[in-house]
Amino acid sequence: MATIEVRPKGYNYVFSPYLEPTASVKPGDKVIVYTDDAFESRIKTKDDLPAKALATAKFLNPQTGPIYIEGAEPGDTLAVKIHSIEFTRDYAVSCFIKYFGGLTSTNLTRTLQEPLEERVWIWHLVDDGRFLYNDEIRVKVPAQPFLGTIATAPELEAISALTPGYFGGNMDVPDVRPGNTLYLPVSNPGALFYVGDCHAAQGQGELCGVALEITGKATLTFEVIKGKNSEWPRIESPEKIMTVGSARPMEDAARIAYAELVKWLAEDYGFTVAEAYQLLTQVGGLYVGNMVDTSYSLVASIEKKYLERT
Amino acid sequence: MATIEVRPKGYNYVFSPYLEPTASVKPGDKVIVYTDDAFESRIKTKDDLPAKALATAKFLNPQTGPIYIEGAEPGDTLAVKIHSIEFTRDYAVSCFIKYFGGLTSTNLTRTLQEPLEERVWIWHLVDDGRFLYNDEIRVKVPAQPFLGTIATAPELEAISALTPGYFGGNMDVPDVRPGNTLYLPVSNPGALFYVGDCHAAQGQGELCGVALEITGKATLTFEVIKGKNSEWPRIESPEKIMTVGSARPMEDAARIAYAELVKWLAEDYGFTVAEAYQLLTQVGGLYVGNMVDTSYSLVASIEKKYLERT
Amino acid sequence: MATIEVRPKGYNYVFSPYLEPTASVKPGDKVIVYTDDAFESRIKTKDDLPAKALATAKFLNPQTGPIYIEGAEPGDTLAVKIHSIEFTRDYAVSCFIKYFGGLTSTNLTRTLQEPLEERVWIWHLVDDGRFLYNDEIRVKVPAQPFLGTIATAPELEAISALTPGYFGGNMDVPDVRPGNTLYLPVSNPGALFYVGDCHAAQGQGELCGVALEITGKATLTFEVIKGKNSEWPRIESPEKIMTVGSARPMEDAARIAYAELVKWLAEDYGFTVAEAYQLLTQVGGLYVGNMVDTSYSLVASIEKKYLERT
Amino acid sequence: MATIEVRPKGYNYVFSPYLEPTASVKPGDKVIVYTDDAFESRIKTKDDLPAKALATAKFLNPQTGPIYIEGAEPGDTLAVKIHSIEFTRDYAVSCFIKYFGGLTSTNLTRTLQEPLEERVWIWHLVDDGRFLYNDEIRVKVPAQPFLGTIATAPELEAISALTPGYFGGNMDVPDVRPGNTLYLPVSNPGALFYVGDCHAAQGQGELCGVALEITGKATLTFEVIKGKNSEWPRIESPEKIMTVGSARPMEDAARIAYAELVKWLAEDYGFTVAEAYQLLTQVGGLYVGNMVDTSYSLVASIEKKYLERT
Repeated sequence: MATIEVRPKGYNYVFSPYLEPTASVKPGDKVIVYTDDAFESRIKTKDDLPAKALATAKFLNPQTGPIYIEGAEPGDTLAVKIHSIEFTRDYAVSCFIKYFGGLTSTNLTRTLQEPLEERVWIWHLVDDGRFLYNDEIRVKVPAQPFLGTIATAPELEAISALTPGYFGGNMDVPDVRPGNTLYLPVSNPGALFYVGDCHAAQGQGELCGVALEITGKATLTFEVIKGKNSEWPRIESPEKIMTVGSARPMEDAARIAYAELVKWLAEDYGFTVAEAYQLLTQVGGLYVGNMVDTSYSLVASIEKKYLERT
Repeated sequence: MATIEVRPKGYNYVFSPYLEPTASVKPGDKVIVYTDDAFESRIKTKDDLPAKALATAKFLNPQTGPIYIEGAEPGDTLAVKIHSIEFTRDYAVSCFIKYFGGLTSTNLTRTLQEPLEERVWIWHLVDDGRFLYNDEIRVKVPAQPFLGTIATAPELEAISALTPGYFGGNMDVPDVRPGNTLYLPVSNPGALFYVGDCHAAQGQGELCGVALEITGKATLTFEVIKGKNSEWPRIESPEKIMTVGSARPMEDAARIAYAELVKWLAEDYGFTVAEAYQLLTQVGGLYVGNMVDTSYSLVASIEKKYLERT
Repeated sequence: MATIEVRPKGYNYVFSPYLEPTASVKPGDKVIVYTDDAFESRIKTKDDLPAKALATAKFLNPQTGPIYIEGAEPGDTLAVKIHSIEFTRDYAVSCFIKYFGGLTSTNLTRTLQEPLEERVWIWHLVDDGRFLYNDEIRVKVPAQPFLGTIATAPELEAISALTPGYFGGNMDVPDVRPGNTLYLPVSNPGALFYVGDCHAAQGQGELCGVALEITGKATLTFEVIKGKNSEWPRIESPEKIMTVGSARPMEDAARIAYAELVKWLAEDYGFTVAEAYQLLTQVGGLYVGNMVDTSYSLVASIEKKYLERT
Repeated sequence: MATIEVRPKGYNYVFSPYLEPTASVKPGDKVIVYTDDAFESRIKTKDDLPAKALATAKFLNPQTGPIYIEGAEPGDTLAVKIHSIEFTRDYAVSCFIKYFGGLTSTNLTRTLQEPLEERVWIWHLVDDGRFLYNDEIRVKVPAQPFLGTIATAPELEAISALTPGYFGGNMDVPDVRPGNTLYLPVSNPGALFYVGDCHAAQGQGELCGVALEITGKATLTFEVIKGKNSEWPRIESPEKIMTVGSARPMEDAARIAYAELVKWLAEDYGFTVAEAYQLLTQVGGLYVGNMVDTSYSLVASIEKKYLERT
């Protein structure tokens, strides 16, 4: 197995089947991917207010890729094992952007009100990178890096890198983190994998819309599961299996996540649909990944210990 | 302080300011409350299918109360400390009810489709009551008892015991459990406290709409916080503070929960609104309590360790 | 048949089965009902800004009633024929209220933004009461009076007069107007009928949340349709039959309205459910009554000319 | 000005900036466009049940285009005048498709229920094409043709032809009909115009998801309004101006539609934002175009007679 470094040559801002692959890798290769932050590093200080700092940015959330995975064909599932995420600078940024976020009206939930005031928050890595610290808030937050955006290209559509969906995308789900494996449906030959939007940490919901955005270096390996289509993203951690639903309104995302988990339990774990529906009622988990993006992403889960019958 | 047992004398099915108190207690009294299950114990075996077993039930989710708490006045907050919950029978029931649940159309989300098939699931307490076991699914689930329904009466309205809202109610939030304190707004003299719907365990979302329903005995104490109105339910555990928002669509419940938590951080913990909004973005929790009731209930939270500045 | 005048003796602010009837009438009686406006006439000039003018108002939207209709029993339907609505003053008021309306965040759709600026709009009746005119906007609007709030009491619940639902209530649907008949489910002996919130005119959606609010005098007759429960409000005009669904999110209100219309066509007009579903696809109407109240109200309709088969 | 016929050479199923134009036209040219129906004419009889008849259809809703309009540049608005729509066959089809429609669960609003039964409805043009008639339902419906799908290409994204949005798309709004002018934002050089999905008639909401689908021939002219971006679709009829908002949940579509209409009144008709908000409250229209597509489309309107001040 080879080790392959993928550095972006000009970013892409869309999960597209129409773009030339940046790299081609084999299943099992150790793939080291460098990602820029969601603002393409345009915000570096408290004074880089978004309206000005991002004025020249035609698009946001630059993606590294597409990476072509050899052997992946439509109808397969791409398994992405995340081995590690390292930060490639010593601070993360968050900010309040006008008409964007969970507690403001937006371009989708329109009001006539004035926007919230813009503001930039710089969080410095401290304690050997184990924590982040903002000197106004004066609270230390543990670094828990994950990949906010991770996708395969849809078959026909080219979808903005700000959007989550059945293809993965901008889910902003903290469980897309080192140690876990993400499963994505393959819709094109080579899968056409995109990744970006590294977060040093993020709460559930990504409340103001901007997590602790940072540049990063992720080490991944890919496997191709032939002839089996996950249809929606799935995540496996050492303790849990999880499904991600992305939709609006939020209850539609919740329904998708749990319906996919019912399906998974029925297909792979020997439960009937009725048993899975009942079991998840009593022990399922359901948290909000993002409540701020063009679709909301919710994560349904069950601990593996409940998947073995006595 | 006295010990007072409250046994229901005829149940109520509504959080109402128009009902006579069942009991009157003082702040600090040890109050032992007996609750029936959501079906008033009409479902006892696999053969008690809901359409038949509940045919004579005019209303569901019987409540014990109202309990009058001396000294509580409109504008106060009622703090309810939950010391313990004991089960008063050796099994819990769940079931699939026609047109009710998270993965079916309902009387609010209407379709022309046939309902899912009715079914009853009996879960027996095993291992000295530490687990529940269903012999069809053959999985053991840990007992994690909590109070599915807990409320003060609204001021003017009488609201069905199936509904959650600013007054608490049928939130189905697992964090309303022993060791935690629930804060509810007081809208009437004496607060007029209602409680019922004990759950032996429940996953996040209460997927099929019916958790592990059981009869119970809860030990509570009340405190009255004068002149301070929480407006929406709050929960405090040893490690976290939490807020509960109930609304439809689900994103409205999410916004309420987080907006109330921002307010709490700003009022009691010395953060500005902007700092609270930022901090919760990075370390807030947000899970779904119920995705099945007349309003959905979401729980926003922050660990107490983040509430002290360095 | 008698003519009976019902003047409010102290208003009610809740659709409640717990209140004493204001009057008792027989089916067929000519019932003349006087209603105050939604602000109980507290706003009379441009300077009566809501935050101040309504500061002493504990509740809004005063209702006249309950009126007891003899012979009405639970399970029946109450038919309310609206013969006429006359205005009892020469101006209507609208206003912008903080955190209330269709293009602002609200106490249900929470944000951290500042509210829109309060403002009062006085619309004078002109041209013998056929039009209303505001001298800032300088546009004439035709008077098209209707009853914004009209309800029977729920069985167990007492619901705020600001809320619409299966019982009718604060639907803000312009088709509740003279010449039309409203059908409401009966949940209590005597039906317990409430009415208020006369609007001199209103657009679809009631965008800012406050229509042309005016005091009025409505002439009604009631009929009781025995043994047939409409379950949700229905409206019949000379040309159309209509159903009203009230819920959140708005698609749930749309589904209720159309599902009830499918049911009506199947029950009373000889169509199969499939035929009704297909026919309404091609010729159904669906407009928004209100997008501002605690639940949204949508009106589905079909012209009577499509109800006769060739 | 030339007359140009555009016949599809292989259909497209996506509003894409990445496709070669089918034709290039000048503003003012008389453009005659032929469109296939949403099923590419695969359903012709009652027996062509969708699951089988569409089994080989990889994508639905074929579009004619893109048509390049000379002189159109990003930031402009494209005005599309619809002169006429003629049918090119003598019947229209509607059908019930599994898990698609307004009164069924769908792939976005997931349940575990069985789908509704498939069914095809053939509606024959009768009375010289002025009406359609189905011989099972036995009701005549007037032909009111319009273009269900009409779009300019987004800038970066390629969006499925089943989706409506700011670019127009699959709005299913009956006011996109002969005599009216549609305004769409231009995001690419040449605008890249797509059109398809001719409907012989459709009710508001497009309840079962499938209107009276028919092949057609539309006569259009284009104008380019330089330097003015409508941002969302607008429609002008002889009597009204209208805006279309597409989003989920439905209240977000309603807010977009009315917010855009407020903006239009403020920009072009001399009202302040507050005056527009107030005026639309009293005389605005708001109906549902579709309640079945990937986003819902609502239409806000005001009659032109209210746009002139006295």
